[in-house]
Amino acid sequence: MTSILIKNATIFTQNANGSPAKADVLCENGRISKIGTGILAKAEYKIDASGKILMPGFANCHTHAAMSLLRGYCDDMKLEDWLAKKIWPAEAKMGKDAIKAGTKLATLEMIKSGTTFFNDMYFQMDLVFEATADSGMRACLGYGMIDLGDAAKREKELGIARKFAKSAISAKNPLITASMAPHSPYTCSKELLQESFMTSQELKLPYHIHLSETRKEVFDVLKQTGKRPVEYLDSIGVLGKNMVAAHCVWMTLREVELMGKKGAKAILNPGSNLKLASGGVPPVPEMMKSKVGICLGTDGAASNNSLSMFEAAKYIALLVKNARWNASIITAQEALGFATSGGYEAFGLNGGRIAKGALADLILLDAKAANLNPATAATNMHAQVVYAGHAGNVTDSIIGGKPVMLDGKILTLNEDKVVEQANNEYERLISSLG
Amino acid sequence: MTSILIKNATIFTQNANGSPAKADVLCENGRISKIGTGILAKAEYKIDASGKILMPGFANCHTHAAMSLLRGYCDDMKLEDWLAKKIWPAEAKMGKDAIKAGTKLATLEMIKSGTTFFNDMYFQMDLVFEATADSGMRACLGYGMIDLGDAAKREKELGIARKFAKSAISAKNPLITASMAPHSPYTCSKELLQESFMTSQELKLPYHIHLSETRKEVFDVLKQTGKRPVEYLDSIGVLGKNMVAAHCVWMTLREVELMGKKGAKAILNPGSNLKLASGGVPPVPEMMKSKVGICLGTDGAASNNSLSMFEAAKYIALLVKNARWNASIITAQEALGFATSGGYEAFGLNGGRIAKGALADLILLDAKAANLNPATAATNMHAQVVYAGHAGNVTDSIIGGKPVMLDGKILTLNEDKVVEQANNEYERLISSLG
Repeated sequence: MTSILIKNATIFTQNANGSPAKADVLCENGRISKIGTGILAKAEYKIDASGKILMPGFANCHTHAAMSLLRGYCDDMKLEDWLAKKIWPAEAKMGKDAIKAGTKLATLEMIKSGTTFFNDMYFQMDLVFEATADSGMRACLGYGMIDLGDAAKREKELGIARKFAKSAISAKNPLITASMAPHSPYTCSKELLQESFMTSQELKLPYHIHLSETRKEVFDVLKQTGKRPVEYLDSIGVLGKNMVAAHCVWMTLREVELMGKKGAKAILNPGSNLKLASGGVPPVPEMMKSKVGICLGTDGAASNNSLSMFEAAKYIALLVKNARWNASIITAQEALGFATSGGYEAFGLNGGRIAKGALADLILLDAKAANLNPATAATNMHAQVVYAGHAGNVTDSIIGGKPVMLDGKILTLNEDKVVEQANNEYERLISSLG
Repeated sequence: MTSILIKNATIFTQNANGSPAKADVLCENGRISKIGTGILAKAEYKIDASGKILMPGFANCHTHAAMSLLRGYCDDMKLEDWLAKKIWPAEAKMGKDAIKAGTKLATLEMIKSGTTFFNDMYFQMDLVFEATADSGMRACLGYGMIDLGDAAKREKELGIARKFAKSAISAKNPLITASMAPHSPYTCSKELLQESFMTSQELKLPYHIHLSETRKEVFDVLKQTGKRPVEYLDSIGVLGKNMVAAHCVWMTLREVELMGKKGAKAILNPGSNLKLASGGVPPVPEMMKSKVGICLGTDGAASNNSLSMFEAAKYIALLVKNARWNASIITAQEALGFATSGGYEAFGLNGGRIAKGALADLILLDAKAANLNPATAATNMHAQVVYAGHAGNVTDSIIGGKPVMLDGKILTLNEDKVVEQANNEYERLISSLG
């Protein structure tokens, strides 16, 4: 296995006040094996990180990578029109090459912006798996199931999802796992939700679902089941520790407490919620109080439209402060935790932190970038990164102990080719739509 | 005067739907002199912009540049504690070198992130002027006056502000103008507001003021004067075309209409308002309906903490959509207009657009950046730039027809030295605070 010695990096996530300190970090067998100063070791790669900041990579816990192909295709529309008139017709025409090109474009953007792990829900997941494997990223991939109450469709969807999950597991790629991913409580029957939950338990996989994103969804579920979404999912037995629920915007305190009690995780997607005008701000202080595991996602690039987790971390901190008229209700350190360790923990991974034994999913930032300075012993680097950092500050990425980007150069993908293919596939798709 | 020929750029701001097209642009005597294809001209600089996107530079219409020195010094605090316990004591200790170092750090970050013009309010403005002149940026600089009702203080403040404005004018730097900048209706007496307004009329300068940022301010002004802030300023005769009012968050419809009627401009600072938990979202749809000129700012780096105008443009679009539960209420093109032409127009400058005769304040972005693609004829590039662009995409900057950054290299400042000086001054400042 690859070994990497990172010398003279500035690290800050170890200190509660975010003050930076110099350290060397050794990565062996995909994990951090040593942290200290003056580490001497034979390593395949030696990275001189003087002038760079070392931090855990970001975990983008909810996205639809292939939808990066549709970035800029339609924006500023009402959710219903956007979906029905533009997104669904385009998705129906997305062929294999389009799915792969979109996914590759997404992985390129994610690596460049410091994301080391992502959790995806889409269709044609064998192609998403291939593109992800090529990129060198860590990921959890799930086929998004929808049956709208149709029993025949249900069996078909479950079949596809199970087949993909099993093939992903048997591929034994150390970086890629699968999820069971029923789309949502309003697009999936009770049976689909329950059967996919049973498979997730059997195969020990995360249960990835959209939950309480819009008010309409809450009212529809309430009308249909007599219960609010979280209470409904609990009543049918699928609310548990392996649930990673995307959005969680419109929730009562009772639902938040229920999620905390059952160990379900909330994946917040502030950029997407704002752009689609969901209208709310997730109840983060209540989630923290109820010990709901919180992580962040960008959602797909058709709805955000950026996959930068710098944005997600800053948005959630600022939105909650503003919504609660309280600037101290959430700190930069907490927001950064949601964007890194919170994500890894939600998927049962020991990562998102710089610690012996943790996964070697690490990024380096340019410590001399104007926007990240001052950066002295008296600086809170949590604040610099969350409130002033941007995707352009990322210089290096290490995933699973392997270098994926060094000094801005991606080692796993041909950048120009990825962008060119995406443009070609996009043009083909648009002309097929007439 | 310098002439620049930009060849084969991708431009998009000319088209209502944001679709990109190829063009050459010639800049002479500080202005755009020709736009077309296959332009042949002798020019001092020739920029090959194939693979790059050309757009107007951003106008950051409200900032306190020197405060970049305090970035990361204190965050996540309540506004009153943040100001009284941390910011004011630190500012009181900021010497000449600190002011210059902070301003230089800000200009470096602004150039890197595509800002070509900024409007500043601070103290020791002769030093801010010097640092700004070194950077090659276009700016409007004003000494921030506060008298808290003290007549002696008022005369002193007016004296400093007038002296600076006159010296800035007589310096005849083609890029730098001055403003009269009374801090706010709650920190300035009626006399100070009126006298500084008269000077602004006499010297033909913008009247830069903080206005309706917090609910507390609105209630305090209401209690003190019996009128809401905009109505109060109108009643004392200072609400006019040359007013550029920062924040404008807490306003009634009547106040918005009054601003529109009198021609006052609103400078929105969404990042700062959110982070300081002002609690509101500015009434942008009403401002548009009342034809209030809208532009954007970042505010100072102690309160945002980024000076990236990409963030400001995305924030304002997303916040308004979410606040009004309507994704189509504001478009990417409108948000980009606020961030570029809206800013230039607010200061009476023919800029922020690509048009013959307009100021040659232009930037180039890396058209191959993953986050800005797809970028074909069917792409809305307004959306790509506003919703997916980031500071790291900027490669070149031309200000007043002169190259300030080429291929990521700043020509006017020594980047490493600017960052080093900022860190040294920050350390000195912190140790002086004990």
